[in-house]
Amino acid sequence: MGGVRRIAFIGLGAMGGRMVARLLQGGFAVQGYDVSAVAQDAIAAIGAQPAASAAEAARDADAVILMVVDAAQAEQVLFEDGVVQALAAGRPVLLMATCPAWRVAEIAEQVTALGRRFVDAPVSGGTAGAETGTLTIMAAAPAAVVDTVRPIFAVLGRKLVHVGERPGKAATLKTINQLLCGVHIAAAAEAFALASKCGLDLPLVLDVLGDSAASSWMLKDRGPRMLERDPAVSSAIDIFVKDLGLVLDTARNAKAAAPLAAIAHQLFLATSGRGLGAADDSQVLRSYAALNGTD
Amino acid sequence: MGGVRRIAFIGLGAMGGRMVARLLQGGFAVQGYDVSAVAQDAIAAIGAQPAASAAEAARDADAVILMVVDAAQAEQVLFEDGVVQALAAGRPVLLMATCPAWRVAEIAEQVTALGRRFVDAPVSGGTAGAETGTLTIMAAAPAAVVDTVRPIFAVLGRKLVHVGERPGKAATLKTINQLLCGVHIAAAAEAFALASKCGLDLPLVLDVLGDSAASSWMLKDRGPRMLERDPAVSSAIDIFVKDLGLVLDTARNAKAAAPLAAIAHQLFLATSGRGLGAADDSQVLRSYAALNGTD
Repeated sequence: MGGVRRIAFIGLGAMGGRMVARLLQGGFAVQGYDVSAVAQDAIAAIGAQPAASAAEAARDADAVILMVVDAAQAEQVLFEDGVVQALAAGRPVLLMATCPAWRVAEIAEQVTALGRRFVDAPVSGGTAGAETGTLTIMAAAPAAVVDTVRPIFAVLGRKLVHVGERPGKAATLKTINQLLCGVHIAAAAEAFALASKCGLDLPLVLDVLGDSAASSWMLKDRGPRMLERDPAVSSAIDIFVKDLGLVLDTARNAKAAAPLAAIAHQLFLATSGRGLGAADDSQVLRSYAALNGTD
Repeated sequence: MGGVRRIAFIGLGAMGGRMVARLLQGGFAVQGYDVSAVAQDAIAAIGAQPAASAAEAARDADAVILMVVDAAQAEQVLFEDGVVQALAAGRPVLLMATCPAWRVAEIAEQVTALGRRFVDAPVSGGTAGAETGTLTIMAAAPAAVVDTVRPIFAVLGRKLVHVGERPGKAATLKTINQLLCGVHIAAAAEAFALASKCGLDLPLVLDVLGDSAASSWMLKDRGPRMLERDPAVSSAIDIFVKDLGLVLDTARNAKAAAPLAAIAHQLFLATSGRGLGAADDSQVLRSYAALNGTD
């Protein structure tokens, strides 16, 4: 199928925009598309080519990357907006958004039935990882297909793990990843809320716990933003409403108990229900404030 | 009160034994006591002086360190077994075990009323941190008292945080620390249990999640032992039955909600209830296996 030089990138949000910047720095040509004109302008300003439509972006591309919100958007873009048809036969579609494994498997089947390749390739590391090209990339596809897109993964991530050949397996692993991410954010909020009620100095609590056996990646990343009143939004509350919902759907399908994920989901859901769905996910802390009647 | 050279060390378990080794390496003379003859023999073999009783260990000591199981043992040793009376006036007692803040405050009051000093000094970092002298030490006592025992903390820990002057404050911070430690262990077990039900390869799951935004200190430390059938015991299930119980007592006293800690406590408690209280705490995974009916 030849080398990969020209990439169609669909979905230019907080993650996608930063990944496009990395691809440009890595020497790729990028044709980007997003429904947001602001997002289109932002990638034009750094040297990517904004496209008039998703299908237009895919024309002449060597590969398509999808960093859309969910599986429904991926299906819309691929099958209704004409991306698969616009992409040359034999070229790969890389679905890097967080989607349910069963939806990913269905999408993969449709894409390959139409003569294109498919890589289930979700990531972990958030906007910080996207910006610095240090994402962890989980890939499920035949090894030969993964090999053709390694140069792309090399500029986006620090670690590539080939989870298996069957699309959906990487999505499942990403779901497990989100279980821990979501529970760890909520647990950090619970710790700060209790520390606050006990009269401890929260910056000191963060300093100690971030450097002890109590530490987590999320405590160190979200912890500082939990101590701000209105932090900048790095990832929204509603992302974890969705992702922990996906964890619970996955556990339900597997008939497995996931009580910690269920509690964490409730806390994010209630935060969203109070009108804070677009706030930074560190603000799940406010569900504890609401429960405890503190500020 | 002069320099500190000779230390009485009471409680020579998994943590205490390793801390005595560090103190000996750091040039201190150690007089140790434990109800277990095996533990006494073990410190004798590395150059410490086993004492005939706790009071005997404290006689002629420049400081007493308590690394006993709980507050009841600390009170027994200090006030009933005669340690405070045996220690010279003005010398410090360092309580490094995990105890409720309100018990620590009471003990501190009694010790200082008898003319000795007191430092509330719990640690985080587990047996690995004890062995390598990389513990995080949280200290609450008047600054002048903390200063006199800095040479001791310097060989036991990598980080010393002076939480405040009032004994009990460090114990509260340690309690918050244990909230995260306990929830993170249970969350790791929940993630592995779900991954297993979904047919993922668990060593691969650990490799990816231990190096992504899902990571925690506990995932990296306990995760490998969750993949073993009968791992060596580094810290027992019953320690977290106690410590998460302490978290919940603290939250109850503060009238604060701690739903994640409550769920995690249930999982450790049920594991202990099935007769596994002395097993390694990674085996909380078996509560998920019991719930899910898996092996």
